Amino acid sequence: MFESAELGHRIDKKTYKEAVPQLRADLLDAQYDLKEQGKIPVIVLVSGQDGAGKGETINLLYEWMDPRFISTLAFCAPTDEERERPVMWRYWRALPPRGRIGIFAGSWYSAPIHDRIEGTMTPAALDRRIDQINRFEQMLAHEGALVLKLWFHLTQEGQRRRLKALEKDPRTAWRVTRWNWDRLKTYDALQEVAGHVLRLTNTPWAPWLIVEGEDDRYREITAGRIILDAMRRHLAAGDRQTPAVAPPVRPNIDGRDVISQLDLTLKLSKKQYEDQLAKWKGRLSELVRDPRFRRRSLICVFEGADAAGKGSAIRRVAAAMDARQYQIVPVAAPTEEERAQPYLWRFWRHMPRAGRVTIFDRSWYGRVLVERVEGFCSEADWQRAYNEINDFEHELDEAGAIVVKFWLQIGKDEQLRRFQEREQVEFKRFKITAEDWRNREKWDAYHQAVCDMVDRTSTGQAPWTLVEANDKAYARVKILRTLCERLEAALSTAPAPPDANFAGKGKK
Amino acid sequence: MFESAELGHRIDKKTYKEAVPQLRADLLDAQYDLKEQGKIPVIVLVSGQDGAGKGETINLLYEWMDPRFISTLAFCAPTDEERERPVMWRYWRALPPRGRIGIFAGSWYSAPIHDRIEGTMTPAALDRRIDQINRFEQMLAHEGALVLKLWFHLTQEGQRRRLKALEKDPRTAWRVTRWNWDRLKTYDALQEVAGHVLRLTNTPWAPWLIVEGEDDRYREITAGRIILDAMRRHLAAGDRQTPAVAPPVRPNIDGRDVISQLDLTLKLSKKQYEDQLAKWKGRLSELVRDPRFRRRSLICVFEGADAAGKGSAIRRVAAAMDARQYQIVPVAAPTEEERAQPYLWRFWRHMPRAGRVTIFDRSWYGRVLVERVEGFCSEADWQRAYNEINDFEHELDEAGAIVVKFWLQIGKDEQLRRFQEREQVEFKRFKITAEDWRNREKWDAYHQAVCDMVDRTSTGQAPWTLVEANDKAYARVKILRTLCERLEAALSTAPAPPDANFAGKGKK
Repeated sequence: MFESAELGHRIDKKTYKEAVPQLRADLLDAQYDLKEQGKIPVIVLVSGQDGAGKGETINLLYEWMDPRFISTLAFCAPTDEERERPVMWRYWRALPPRGRIGIFAGSWYSAPIHDRIEGTMTPAALDRRIDQINRFEQMLAHEGALVLKLWFHLTQEGQRRRLKALEKDPRTAWRVTRWNWDRLKTYDALQEVAGHVLRLTNTPWAPWLIVEGEDDRYREITAGRIILDAMRRHLAAGDRQTPAVAPPVRPNIDGRDVISQLDLTLKLSKKQYEDQLAKWKGRLSELVRDPRFRRRSLICVFEGADAAGKGSAIRRVAAAMDARQYQIVPVAAPTEEERAQPYLWRFWRHMPRAGRVTIFDRSWYGRVLVERVEGFCSEADWQRAYNEINDFEHELDEAGAIVVKFWLQIGKDEQLRRFQEREQVEFKRFKITAEDWRNREKWDAYHQAVCDMVDRTSTGQAPWTLVEANDKAYARVKILRTLCERLEAALSTAPAPPDANFAGKGKK
Repeated sequence: MFESAELGHRIDKKTYKEAVPQLRADLLDAQYDLKEQGKIPVIVLVSGQDGAGKGETINLLYEWMDPRFISTLAFCAPTDEERERPVMWRYWRALPPRGRIGIFAGSWYSAPIHDRIEGTMTPAALDRRIDQINRFEQMLAHEGALVLKLWFHLTQEGQRRRLKALEKDPRTAWRVTRWNWDRLKTYDALQEVAGHVLRLTNTPWAPWLIVEGEDDRYREITAGRIILDAMRRHLAAGDRQTPAVAPPVRPNIDGRDVISQLDLTLKLSKKQYEDQLAKWKGRLSELVRDPRFRRRSLICVFEGADAAGKGSAIRRVAAAMDARQYQIVPVAAPTEEERAQPYLWRFWRHMPRAGRVTIFDRSWYGRVLVERVEGFCSEADWQRAYNEINDFEHELDEAGAIVVKFWLQIGKDEQLRRFQEREQVEFKRFKITAEDWRNREKWDAYHQAVCDMVDRTSTGQAPWTLVEANDKAYARVKILRTLCERLEAALSTAPAPPDANFAGKGKK
């Protein structure tokens, strides 16, 4: 894998001097085209051995291009705000928006490689992380991002020469510390682990580009050309959508599906409701204050037909908690900053810290519900969303978050009754709009979308709870009871294994 | 100050039950009007004694209003990301956007009151903080925010009764800890410090509302009515602008001003330039890597006429640093999320952590330059901006940030020459637009705006450096030299006093 980068590549001064002006001009042009087009975020990972020119390359790109549209993110030890959330949260928050270039100095590869060398991460955990990284990068590629992964390589002897040269020059001597020399001793370990990681993450959508780091001129021109070429090709490809061949579907022959099988006549008497509501609210109140919850977090998702009672159910759940502990996120149209990012970004930004609760009033499932039915996104987009969402919820689960998802189902007649009631009650007038009536006409399409959603995203870690909601009392109690049961089960199990979060990690 | 809240206010059950439905309906209406109008952020501070009903009030507001448009921010010990930035950063990042209600459980008052009681903050430092808070709240009021400061009060005996009652009820017993009983012992100290703070922050734009906390029903109805009434009055007042009487100006009788006095013929030979550029770049490179810089941060502001050479100067500065250390923020039109916040919010979000550098390519001075000249904001807005900006930079300075501001001045002829050159050089074509030509017609208005800006915002902590920029070489060297001198001076002084940042603070 590293052979082509051990050939002693060199470029002489004259060739270099001739090549640079054109390369710079072209890079700058490509950068402005990128900005004008405003569709592609460029993500450049700068990785490799110490002394192989990572820092120099970053500074060079700043000098060659317009630095106003580049951001560099350096990842050292995670901050406490980062440690209390899923591993990938810190990278999500750092993604460049469309039209910009984000350079990652130290990336999602640094911590696992480091931890594997140190022995704090098991080989199995490393491979799980690699899977996760591959899915993450595939998602980025699907979102139109250009992911460029550069690995600057040196032979062991080359690394020793580079460190010595850096140490000798007073302008660069500060960069070489004891730590760098120690790392030289782990050269073989790094080669072994990095070789493994690079091989398994060498995907068609985000391949590694190994660049020999010893000769400055060769490295600079090579890195510049790689970036220029990739940007040009991405820009030329434009807005092409991966042609989606719709996957096979199971026909619904007997009319039985998870939604139609719900017994919407379920109800509670007033007495039952009051007793059980008090009981489960009390229980929920205890659970979120349980000391064991301080290292977990709770993410509640409420989806349902219009007028199914999401809002009032959320209020009952919220009332059991301390307002300082939870946040309700109503999901509406994305903002401008959110539209410039991958689809899931606007949900990632609301992920709760340890000990906190986030309640989503509508959620990331919008993509496979309203966006699918209304045609707001392409079929390819919503088809891939199922897997992306499962990955997302899996990451949350691994980080100790408890994900509880509710679909509130009402009958078509009951919806009509509620719409009409809302139109007549002054106090509820704001709750019914022309859009609600239009959505109602697509009842069957939504029905199918919900069945597919449940089939494809009801997972072991984050199952869907389908709530019979014709009777609001029944629905609220079922929701509270489910939340308590899920929390109890989660709190009685051991916390997530250490390699699923930052414990003992990211020292470098 | 607390007398009216020691009268033993009570409301009987019947009166309460009669009042609540209408109050809830009205609050909900007001909340939807707020959201529809989308102009006013509502900031509710919930403060006061332990056991006086702070948490209960927050939960109640969630129940009475639509929780989807309320956010609650609880401030406990600052996170490390917060500790490494100015004190107010954590509150800025938590401000609700226009149209929403943000409830602050624990606010910018908590830490200073706590620290004064503990003796870790001197009386003088407390009074400085109070001044800062008053200016901050005035800025919020000017931005159209409704700032409601609620203080829930109990007599010492009343507090003892409340704690006992909470402890007796199994549903609330968990909330009473040793810590609460200890706080009872400091009742007098809290009364004294809070009395002082409340008196000095009882401003016309954000007065305190003291509410007796012992009787639940009285407290609930009172808090609800306060909020309802204030929201209604704010909504009715609409978009009124504070009528600005333009302040007196000093006439320019002899044509001499800070800009016209600049000697634009200053220049460097190629040899001088190369020597000095290398020297100061090297020096800057050392300074930002100095261990003493790890507890400071650097904020560079670049302003100047079009084509004055800001971009190329920024590149020279950036080249002296490690790309992992700095961030360049090009300031263009604000995004949707930024427009929903006070003017300075979009700059606060980019404040560097300790040991980092942020370079602003144009800045918060846009308000008193382009926005003033082009009439993008009212005179009242840009007039108050001078003081807000001075306060802002003072806060940065107090937190250990080094603020260095450059105005790059070129002659009108030189600008014309550069515009024409840019139009002819393919490579620079993107740099000149019709807007640049239009701005040029307003040369004199900009000249006046720059002079006023320098007069009013060149302060001891953050002076303006006016850069003679007809000769790019001279300008770049002057910029680098100034940066080095400011950094050297700052690093050789003792770090900011402990009460200017979070040291030993915010435990509660």
